[in-house]
Amino acid sequence: MKPPTTTASGEDSLIARYFRPIASDPGAFGLTDDAAILKSMSDDIVVTTDALVEGVHFLPDDPPDTVAQKALRVNLSDLAAKGATPAGFVLTLALRAADDAWLADFARGLGADAGRFACPLLGGDTVSTPGPLMASITAFGRITPGKMIHRSGAHAGDRVVVTGTIGDAALGLDILRGGGVAAIFEGDAAASLTLVQRYRVPEPRTALAQVLRDHAHAAMDVSDGLAGDLVKLCAASGVSAVIDVPAVPLSQPAARALSAGAVSLEALMSGGDDYEILCAIPDEGFEAFAQAAAAAGVTVSCIGAMIAATSPPQFLDAQGRNLPLGRLSFSHF
Amino acid sequence: MKPPTTTASGEDSLIARYFRPIASDPGAFGLTDDAAILKSMSDDIVVTTDALVEGVHFLPDDPPDTVAQKALRVNLSDLAAKGATPAGFVLTLALRAADDAWLADFARGLGADAGRFACPLLGGDTVSTPGPLMASITAFGRITPGKMIHRSGAHAGDRVVVTGTIGDAALGLDILRGGGVAAIFEGDAAASLTLVQRYRVPEPRTALAQVLRDHAHAAMDVSDGLAGDLVKLCAASGVSAVIDVPAVPLSQPAARALSAGAVSLEALMSGGDDYEILCAIPDEGFEAFAQAAAAAGVTVSCIGAMIAATSPPQFLDAQGRNLPLGRLSFSHF
Repeated sequence: MKPPTTTASGEDSLIARYFRPIASDPGAFGLTDDAAILKSMSDDIVVTTDALVEGVHFLPDDPPDTVAQKALRVNLSDLAAKGATPAGFVLTLALRAADDAWLADFARGLGADAGRFACPLLGGDTVSTPGPLMASITAFGRITPGKMIHRSGAHAGDRVVVTGTIGDAALGLDILRGGGVAAIFEGDAAASLTLVQRYRVPEPRTALAQVLRDHAHAAMDVSDGLAGDLVKLCAASGVSAVIDVPAVPLSQPAARALSAGAVSLEALMSGGDDYEILCAIPDEGFEAFAQAAAAAGVTVSCIGAMIAATSPPQFLDAQGRNLPLGRLSFSHF
Repeated sequence: MKPPTTTASGEDSLIARYFRPIASDPGAFGLTDDAAILKSMSDDIVVTTDALVEGVHFLPDDPPDTVAQKALRVNLSDLAAKGATPAGFVLTLALRAADDAWLADFARGLGADAGRFACPLLGGDTVSTPGPLMASITAFGRITPGKMIHRSGAHAGDRVVVTGTIGDAALGLDILRGGGVAAIFEGDAAASLTLVQRYRVPEPRTALAQVLRDHAHAAMDVSDGLAGDLVKLCAASGVSAVIDVPAVPLSQPAARALSAGAVSLEALMSGGDDYEILCAIPDEGFEAFAQAAAAAGVTVSCIGAMIAATSPPQFLDAQGRNLPLGRLSFSHF
């Protein structure tokens, strides 16, 4: 009733060839068992799961190593926002066929990032699908019991802070899709590549986890657009916010695309895929936070303040006028 | 660049409507945060992940509650085989569209089993896909540090033991696909339904976890066919086995289908989806194991012995003749 196979099945040899070499953690048992062991060391285990679907979260011709990196990094981004230290991950890969060249590149990217972020591959499952490729990762972090940073801890008066720059990934996606942004960067391949790379390989703020544990009242990663994710953080915390839109940090290419009229502020602030961290920092602790972040090598920008209100966050332009945002974020359904 | 959404996105409201009510564990934070907390309580955390793809692991018209149950149970089966006590799980669901009736049934089945097996939903991700539905679950179990049961611990002289009955799920799948088995059970809807149910809703041997911890040298669950999975266990343990095929436990309907010639022994032993447990029990401990299993409500059958050899396991018929199995198990690639 099922296709015949020989003793060493294709699935097993696929795992052995591509994933066993990067599953060096003792808890992975060389991917030869039915389960892995995560040593708890009495910490709380922070668990997060995020999946990438071909054509939705990455493009069919994105390089396979970047697909693997993105699949892991979007999960590392969640762990960082929660203040957790990476501990390991499992991968479910749904494939149409076992394409050796694709898998070799995918595993290379995955192994490099597992090493770089000290987050070992512990196990996984490979399944066949007639549909789009899908990589689903569940990642684990460790944290002192009770110390996970929630979305819900922001207080009125806290500063609203974001890491890095916002909107680059949305511009990168537009370029890859042949949108209007590409024309702005004709003859400037470096800028174009920077934006594309921000879409394909986000930079998880793992280095900021300890700093957030020490200073943040609330945090989340910006995956579905800054504006929409701020709405979620405010709702969870029972506060509102006033955002000084000109203070939202833009990269040099993003500022250029904006001033050329190739993209709206709205698109930058709702575009998604930034994988920066949005957090609420108590006003009196902001200087110490900013110094610790700088020491960790992460740029942070104060973009507004939390206020005591139940109304939606306000986004103010340079003249203090309310900037209505028609759309706030990306949603699957 | 992405479809516009309003403040309360469809994805968030889908999660709120269907999954929040069943995510009652405090570590799930009502599914309103970016991550969950699994309290380790100083145990080792056993991690396993298994995905179901529509058309591959379940049929498009399988009832949604049974799809959810199967998705969780195939993971609970792995935890049981490793001797671990269920602690929680995360779910990634890839959907073509948010079909309310389907989701309501799916969540109902998931919630019922999460309660029944004391394995709470901790978090998840819902993504859209143009392809087949997919439910990927990563499940966690707890076990005393160092006590996980491996595939690799079998010794020559150990008894080869299997729980329950073998081959029913393969027959159930054949019936659902309109194969030749259905004719055997015309006029016996109960037998037919039993087999179909064994395919759709396997019974994880959670009750046996403690017994395995106390008695088994090695264990794994039988998901890809008894014959092929035995080959894997033997290879991991560096032993071989001699199996007394007539001792392989068959249900009454399976025995009937076999004697009617509607199915071969080979198909029963390589069919997959049994989700029984295959284990190696030291000969001197077998009686105590069998008694403890009976007390836990799980039927166990001794089907052969492990031997010191590097050759593939032998499957002997009632006359002691080698029964060559052309195919051993199911593989995705």
